[in-house]
Amino acid sequence: MKLSVGILGATGLTGVELLRLLVRHPGVEIAWVSSESQTGVPYAKVYPSLANRLPEAVSTLISMQAAQQTAPDAVFSCLPHAASAGAIEPFLKNGKTRVIDLSADYRLADRAVYEKTYAHAHPHPERLAGAVYGLSEIHRQRITGATLVANPGCYPTSILLPLIPLLREGIVLPQNLIADSKSGVSGAGRKATDGTHFVFVNENFSAYKVAGEHRHLPEIAEQLSGANGGAVAPLFTPHLVPMERGILSTIYADLAPGKTAADVEAAWNKAYANMPFARPVKDLPQTADVTRSNECRFAVRQVPGSSKVILVSVLDNMVKGASGQALQNFNIMFGLEETLGLL
Amino acid sequence: MKLSVGILGATGLTGVELLRLLVRHPGVEIAWVSSESQTGVPYAKVYPSLANRLPEAVSTLISMQAAQQTAPDAVFSCLPHAASAGAIEPFLKNGKTRVIDLSADYRLADRAVYEKTYAHAHPHPERLAGAVYGLSEIHRQRITGATLVANPGCYPTSILLPLIPLLREGIVLPQNLIADSKSGVSGAGRKATDGTHFVFVNENFSAYKVAGEHRHLPEIAEQLSGANGGAVAPLFTPHLVPMERGILSTIYADLAPGKTAADVEAAWNKAYANMPFARPVKDLPQTADVTRSNECRFAVRQVPGSSKVILVSVLDNMVKGASGQALQNFNIMFGLEETLGLL
Amino acid sequence: MKLSVGILGATGLTGVELLRLLVRHPGVEIAWVSSESQTGVPYAKVYPSLANRLPEAVSTLISMQAAQQTAPDAVFSCLPHAASAGAIEPFLKNGKTRVIDLSADYRLADRAVYEKTYAHAHPHPERLAGAVYGLSEIHRQRITGATLVANPGCYPTSILLPLIPLLREGIVLPQNLIADSKSGVSGAGRKATDGTHFVFVNENFSAYKVAGEHRHLPEIAEQLSGANGGAVAPLFTPHLVPMERGILSTIYADLAPGKTAADVEAAWNKAYANMPFARPVKDLPQTADVTRSNECRFAVRQVPGSSKVILVSVLDNMVKGASGQALQNFNIMFGLEETLGLL
Amino acid sequence: MKLSVGILGATGLTGVELLRLLVRHPGVEIAWVSSESQTGVPYAKVYPSLANRLPEAVSTLISMQAAQQTAPDAVFSCLPHAASAGAIEPFLKNGKTRVIDLSADYRLADRAVYEKTYAHAHPHPERLAGAVYGLSEIHRQRITGATLVANPGCYPTSILLPLIPLLREGIVLPQNLIADSKSGVSGAGRKATDGTHFVFVNENFSAYKVAGEHRHLPEIAEQLSGANGGAVAPLFTPHLVPMERGILSTIYADLAPGKTAADVEAAWNKAYANMPFARPVKDLPQTADVTRSNECRFAVRQVPGSSKVILVSVLDNMVKGASGQALQNFNIMFGLEETLGLL
Repeated sequence: MKLSVGILGATGLTGVELLRLLVRHPGVEIAWVSSESQTGVPYAKVYPSLANRLPEAVSTLISMQAAQQTAPDAVFSCLPHAASAGAIEPFLKNGKTRVIDLSADYRLADRAVYEKTYAHAHPHPERLAGAVYGLSEIHRQRITGATLVANPGCYPTSILLPLIPLLREGIVLPQNLIADSKSGVSGAGRKATDGTHFVFVNENFSAYKVAGEHRHLPEIAEQLSGANGGAVAPLFTPHLVPMERGILSTIYADLAPGKTAADVEAAWNKAYANMPFARPVKDLPQTADVTRSNECRFAVRQVPGSSKVILVSVLDNMVKGASGQALQNFNIMFGLEETLGLL
Repeated sequence: MKLSVGILGATGLTGVELLRLLVRHPGVEIAWVSSESQTGVPYAKVYPSLANRLPEAVSTLISMQAAQQTAPDAVFSCLPHAASAGAIEPFLKNGKTRVIDLSADYRLADRAVYEKTYAHAHPHPERLAGAVYGLSEIHRQRITGATLVANPGCYPTSILLPLIPLLREGIVLPQNLIADSKSGVSGAGRKATDGTHFVFVNENFSAYKVAGEHRHLPEIAEQLSGANGGAVAPLFTPHLVPMERGILSTIYADLAPGKTAADVEAAWNKAYANMPFARPVKDLPQTADVTRSNECRFAVRQVPGSSKVILVSVLDNMVKGASGQALQNFNIMFGLEETLGLL
Repeated sequence: MKLSVGILGATGLTGVELLRLLVRHPGVEIAWVSSESQTGVPYAKVYPSLANRLPEAVSTLISMQAAQQTAPDAVFSCLPHAASAGAIEPFLKNGKTRVIDLSADYRLADRAVYEKTYAHAHPHPERLAGAVYGLSEIHRQRITGATLVANPGCYPTSILLPLIPLLREGIVLPQNLIADSKSGVSGAGRKATDGTHFVFVNENFSAYKVAGEHRHLPEIAEQLSGANGGAVAPLFTPHLVPMERGILSTIYADLAPGKTAADVEAAWNKAYANMPFARPVKDLPQTADVTRSNECRFAVRQVPGSSKVILVSVLDNMVKGASGQALQNFNIMFGLEETLGLL
Repeated sequence: MKLSVGILGATGLTGVELLRLLVRHPGVEIAWVSSESQTGVPYAKVYPSLANRLPEAVSTLISMQAAQQTAPDAVFSCLPHAASAGAIEPFLKNGKTRVIDLSADYRLADRAVYEKTYAHAHPHPERLAGAVYGLSEIHRQRITGATLVANPGCYPTSILLPLIPLLREGIVLPQNLIADSKSGVSGAGRKATDGTHFVFVNENFSAYKVAGEHRHLPEIAEQLSGANGGAVAPLFTPHLVPMERGILSTIYADLAPGKTAADVEAAWNKAYANMPFARPVKDLPQTADVTRSNECRFAVRQVPGSSKVILVSVLDNMVKGASGQALQNFNIMFGLEETLGLL
């Protein structure tokens, strides 16, 4: 028996990445793919790479309204924030469908922070308490039983996985945390803008939304604070790399008194034992090591004669940073092997 | 005494390239830079690379209407076809200003071909006879006296410079000419589209407008026919390369009976003696050899045991393929050293 | 029962690509991976992306000599030409192992052509007659029973798949064939040279080995001649594209009298019915359409008012152009589902 | 009267960049270009982009020995460290020639630090006291009279220019300085290695020599300590960006009590008034803003509600980070207009 799944907003970059993974997943039957702007268009016209990979019956994009008449086992929403919360509401109400929302709508537990960050009222604040933040390795227990999983942002995943065990165990101090993160261009989404124009991106490197302006910061702060058991206010500086995919975060932290890099590794090994997608490594990881894989890898270096450690973390922003983790969460929610469709 | 120049549509890619060259040109005083969509915006906001390079007085974009109140010695139009012809009309009428039009509006002598190619009536067919096709090395004589020069397309320049002397001298046959051309993404212009989105261009190579659909083909055919003294119908296949700038054309031709590759080189050496920007070379040229330079370089190889020759031609589509040749034409028109501002 | 396989020369780019595919193949057990220069090195040190993907027992590279003591069901040789023929000899003699040779050693049936092309005596000319050229869709019948399959070059596959059915059926003429091909840099192999240095490749496009110098040309000519039933002497011009992977071939051909583009498509549809990896398409294919896939796709355009057709063909040079086709041949040789491990 | 200059090691990436600039410099006559590995080779064979740009008399590379028989006004050494100090010795002794050394040999005043960093004895420690660190804007006074200028490393220039005025004025604290720097691949030099192979660099982003291992760190620390009037021990993390050129440094610093971002800007404006190549800017600079320019640009952002500031600094590692600054130093040494040949 395969599980039926639908994808809302299937023509964005996370949508096509999710489909790339789903067509190989042995436990899934794709029920439909939807797009408001391209209803009726064959999916392969939009992404020729998936020609002949989608079952004939679902190879054409349907409208959101048509999608909402159905009740598949699971729906992945690849819609933008604000739009997503409303679009998944009918599924959450049908008593059957479970939802993995890749948008930001349910990532923040604190409604006020959401409304400040995204500059509009939350469409369904009554659901915030029930939503689970889908950082798979950290919140697995709650994801198992969840009806609504808020898939984390790409940057946060690269920062939270290495830091959370260290804060939980008191290996690093919660003060002075700095995450200097670098992302490929696919993180900017499918829309053609000056910021995604080849001529302006290629042979260019830039920082943006420096000093607390990026929307992923509240999500990072909220999760780190939860791990720490008290407020944490990290710095976060995102940068744009002239490549399609990949994130590398360089994280600066102070060791707690008496702790060393060995304690960092021990905490990681304990937290992530038998977790195939969160991997401490010895050699410094590079983004290409995990391209098209669902792994997040991280290593630690201690500055000689200092209590400062530098953590280097990598993932594929389209996979562990988005659609791969969404599928991992799906596997967890439905009691499937966690790696199914992801190796 | 410096010559005053204005630039219409200065915020496109050919506009900024022209400015990059003009700010170094010792004989030029920039009178204004115009943009309809960004009137009043400081130029350095649009292109920070030119910050502090434009004279304070002209560092802000003015409207076309304001521009048209002036009568500089020369105007470069970087506007799109159809719009350009109308915009330069006031200058052509003021009795002083000479115009270099980088659009396609005056490239084709044959009005019917223009109207079929660009799918609209020609805005000023009465000017076609007086316009000179600005392929500098070929039409220098007429450019000298011209009031209106139509700057060639980027692809045509890379194909015409190597082929015209060979057709004129009867070294190659006018039949069976094939130009397989490859261009960097800047050729697609400044507008953000799916076709210029980094994620869809990077790590991708494509052919487009195959089999006679590209708008540069009529221009190529008209010029080759002129050189041949009879109709020539070449094949032309454009391709998109994941790089910012550069064009390489691989041209297949049949030698006339009794001719060899040595005759090809002899014809080139004769046609382009003392011409610094049209350079026959021995080693195969690569696009990077001429990046940010105004040179077009080309080499010949004869297929062993065959009368087929392969010509490989390169140029920078933004320089010799557009703004550099425009400036070269300006130098010729005003009797300046041809290389001024271009070395 | 899984089939045991070994990989000679597993640290080159075709080696790692083959492993990327094999670790997902459900019918294969990797027996060993060998490297002369890196014997004893853990494979994941060389390619961290495969960390934890190889079974512990075979995760370290062994010597060729150690490899040759074994007799797996199949050996893939990713060694360079000349070295490969000698290295696989012990396997060919052991009475059990079947070999897929990714080098050029057995691609050419004509020993004299091989020796001229590769400038050394053929190491084992006695095996030439028994080797099968592994262009899967074309020589499937012979591949099924083969002990030694010579995997085709990357460029030839992109040219032969679209052309062979047309020559066999007399749709295009055997004269005047031109293949203007463009390849990503991985085709140049793993070795660090000026020609693979990022600074000299990036933002550069070049032609090389123009006018019959490339070693893939004899292979192309031999196969086309076989399909035509008489000598064919195509032109072939390779180019280097600043991207990692992908080949696009633009092929110029003359239709036979009375034939049209529709006949081209009909011949393709007939030849490749039910063949998942050779796909005629309507829209012009781009290299990104088939990145990391084993498909070769091709489309046709007829020049209006002319008997000239232009075929545009794409594949991933590392997959259908090398390791993917090798695995496809393996599947065919052992009677497995042809697509196993390749979707 | 033009000044005669020679270039030792002219075939490396800094060598060709220097030549690109020198051929346009109106006050310079190139006396010779040298290369040990390519003596006798025409320069244009190595770098076709400079074909026809070098005077005929010096268009062929000479040996170091031949070069050392001459006494030009200035010699630029583009040789690697250790080799450079010995190679320039004859010029330093001839009583006429002044030297700009682009290697690391004379960058560190402290011999012990040099010997630890570069793991060999200093070839000419007696010259250390007389060498001037060529950070043009900071040490202009001493550069003017210098016979031997040690041109700074590419990373240090991007970090020192924004930080030195702030330390001098006590605007930021000397503790907790972090420079997270990102460089294009040309910083790795001309040699073909795994680290410069297109396939391993493209679509990849990596950190390297994390936690104090990079050789530029002692140079940064020494200069910052000098500005601070006491030891400073910054963190420095270099990263590799898949692009040819450009460095962006993201610098984290703590404001001194009572100071704000406005004080940062004021200190910069004061220190760099009328300095065309060190430019405080308001908008965040990107590397492409300064590509092929000699400018270093930097902006500041203060973290809201915190005393932390983030400085973002960019330069072209080949120009202000190497050959451009070398030429700027030359201009200063010889009393020429500082911008000559650099605009």
